[in-house]
Amino acid sequence: MTNPHDESALDELRDLIRNLPGPDREAEAAARARQQEQTKPQGSLGRLEELGAWVAAWQGQSSPAIRQPMVVVYAGNHGVVAQNVAPYPQAVTAQMVANFQNGGAAINQICEALGLGLQVFELGLEVPTGDITEKAAMTAKETAATIVYGFEAVAGNIDLLCLGEMGIGNTTIASALCLALFGGEAEDWVGPGTGLDPEGVRRKAEVVRRAVEFHRDALDDPLRVLMTLGGREFAAIAGAILGARMRQVPVVLDGFVVCAAAAVLHAIASDALDHCVVGHLSAEPAHARLLEILGKTPLLDLGMRLGEGTGAALAAAIVKSAAEIQRGMATFAEAGVSSKG
Amino acid sequence: MTNPHDESALDELRDLIRNLPGPDREAEAAARARQQEQTKPQGSLGRLEELGAWVAAWQGQSSPAIRQPMVVVYAGNHGVVAQNVAPYPQAVTAQMVANFQNGGAAINQICEALGLGLQVFELGLEVPTGDITEKAAMTAKETAATIVYGFEAVAGNIDLLCLGEMGIGNTTIASALCLALFGGEAEDWVGPGTGLDPEGVRRKAEVVRRAVEFHRDALDDPLRVLMTLGGREFAAIAGAILGARMRQVPVVLDGFVVCAAAAVLHAIASDALDHCVVGHLSAEPAHARLLEILGKTPLLDLGMRLGEGTGAALAAAIVKSAAEIQRGMATFAEAGVSSKG
Repeated sequence: MTNPHDESALDELRDLIRNLPGPDREAEAAARARQQEQTKPQGSLGRLEELGAWVAAWQGQSSPAIRQPMVVVYAGNHGVVAQNVAPYPQAVTAQMVANFQNGGAAINQICEALGLGLQVFELGLEVPTGDITEKAAMTAKETAATIVYGFEAVAGNIDLLCLGEMGIGNTTIASALCLALFGGEAEDWVGPGTGLDPEGVRRKAEVVRRAVEFHRDALDDPLRVLMTLGGREFAAIAGAILGARMRQVPVVLDGFVVCAAAAVLHAIASDALDHCVVGHLSAEPAHARLLEILGKTPLLDLGMRLGEGTGAALAAAIVKSAAEIQRGMATFAEAGVSSKG
Repeated sequence: MTNPHDESALDELRDLIRNLPGPDREAEAAARARQQEQTKPQGSLGRLEELGAWVAAWQGQSSPAIRQPMVVVYAGNHGVVAQNVAPYPQAVTAQMVANFQNGGAAINQICEALGLGLQVFELGLEVPTGDITEKAAMTAKETAATIVYGFEAVAGNIDLLCLGEMGIGNTTIASALCLALFGGEAEDWVGPGTGLDPEGVRRKAEVVRRAVEFHRDALDDPLRVLMTLGGREFAAIAGAILGARMRQVPVVLDGFVVCAAAAVLHAIASDALDHCVVGHLSAEPAHARLLEILGKTPLLDLGMRLGEGTGAALAAAIVKSAAEIQRGMATFAEAGVSSKG
């Protein structure tokens, strides 16, 4: 039997996060050189040019391709919903997983429209994590195991990973993680989530403040923050980001919840998210604040706040187009087009 | 023989533009009612919900579908390039058309990545329109015929039309159209286009000012503005927008040039572009000013300024996803998901 309080697995993960492989600078330079010759005024594709070179760098090939983009959604349940922080009952998490499996949710339609694969993982929904106002969300062992589970989900020939989540109460968890990692006031990190009224938002802020205050002494390290304030989907998302890094798969992050999970890695090593772009700016107000800390500019701003990976999946169309342009667009010489006079 | 100065065909078109069919309000209301029941917090899909109802309204069906999205690119040449307003030689227009036909341009890669059809029409490239600093770009007859040509391009089972253009010198034409239609200073409407330096931009502004001044007495009506300051691709784009309206096909506009063509219709009837969304905000500075006049908020802002319909084509992925969600996403009752407690 291993000791659930044994943090040695977390220590190993911390070492991994501090020593992640970097981008392929040769592939990136070759991609940028080709962009200078392609049949367009220089720089005229704006952010698509950045994305083309970025995909090249992280796939490790100067002619990048996105043929098997995958949306991965992790679902978790949270003891903190006992504190009345979410307008929907906890049963909705499992019901929405069934909806995903039956093809009925928003993310299913986007994947269908854009030709993206979809995998959904439920993480022990029948046993919610601990109520963070009273106890730690997870043990060290469970946290490490869930990160590894996420890590291993990046399998097969996936060449772009879009991360999403489902979990009633998980914007409360995301807010608590951000408050513990980055400080400020609870109100800075709390918003309406799935639709709280102003009084509900005040109650949620108080719950977040109490939880972080209660665990103050355990929050001296980002992985301990993740363990203590938790959320299995957060651990799995962090693991998937790491797994993608090790397998040269670029990542598209979704909204506030996914970015809060990613922020745990960023707090350990500031280069840990260099292989990630942020798909969209969520309407959940704390997302903008978090993106400023992460130094990320979202690709889309459509007033969405659904989760499920919907913003990341939409943005995948842009990343895929950028890769296709990087690989397939002709040069002036190849196309016989005259360059600038 | 018809008289090329006979404006009766333009008069007929003006009547058409002033009496365009409106949206299907019943389909729109049914779509909005269904959104209230779909498995998401109300409003959580932000702009996608607006788009879903908008596609329903303009396709005239409460369960809209986008199965045959089409990018249509019109190419034209412009006598005004004699005034040294473009950094690329005029031959590039035809060379780029060949590049489109060979699958080598940026728009080809985006269409490939996103599953969009592509049609390219060249409009008498070997006979550029008149140099607008000295004469009218087109005759009334040619203007009307080109509008009708664009009108008829909307054929088959196209269910979303993305409009693009190619034409060395055509941002100069777009600037002249905007100055004539909406006033202000030439500098307000002029930018670097494919890459003019600041001195080039000043020269371009002077050319635009001179052209509008030269034709002052002929610019009292938007269709005459189009005829006089021209651009065949502008006339064809205006025609395609009208053709789409008559066939219940929603439209995605591209950047400054396409929107300047659309603006001719807007200046005749303020509801003429209600079946159009703007795909992206171009980096060409006058685009933002024009969109404010048109009352349109672009879907994307990626610093692009290439034309070819590239911004519209990328945005088609969002519109297609919105239609798919509108049609395919389950309701709480259908999916057995509990609603708000």
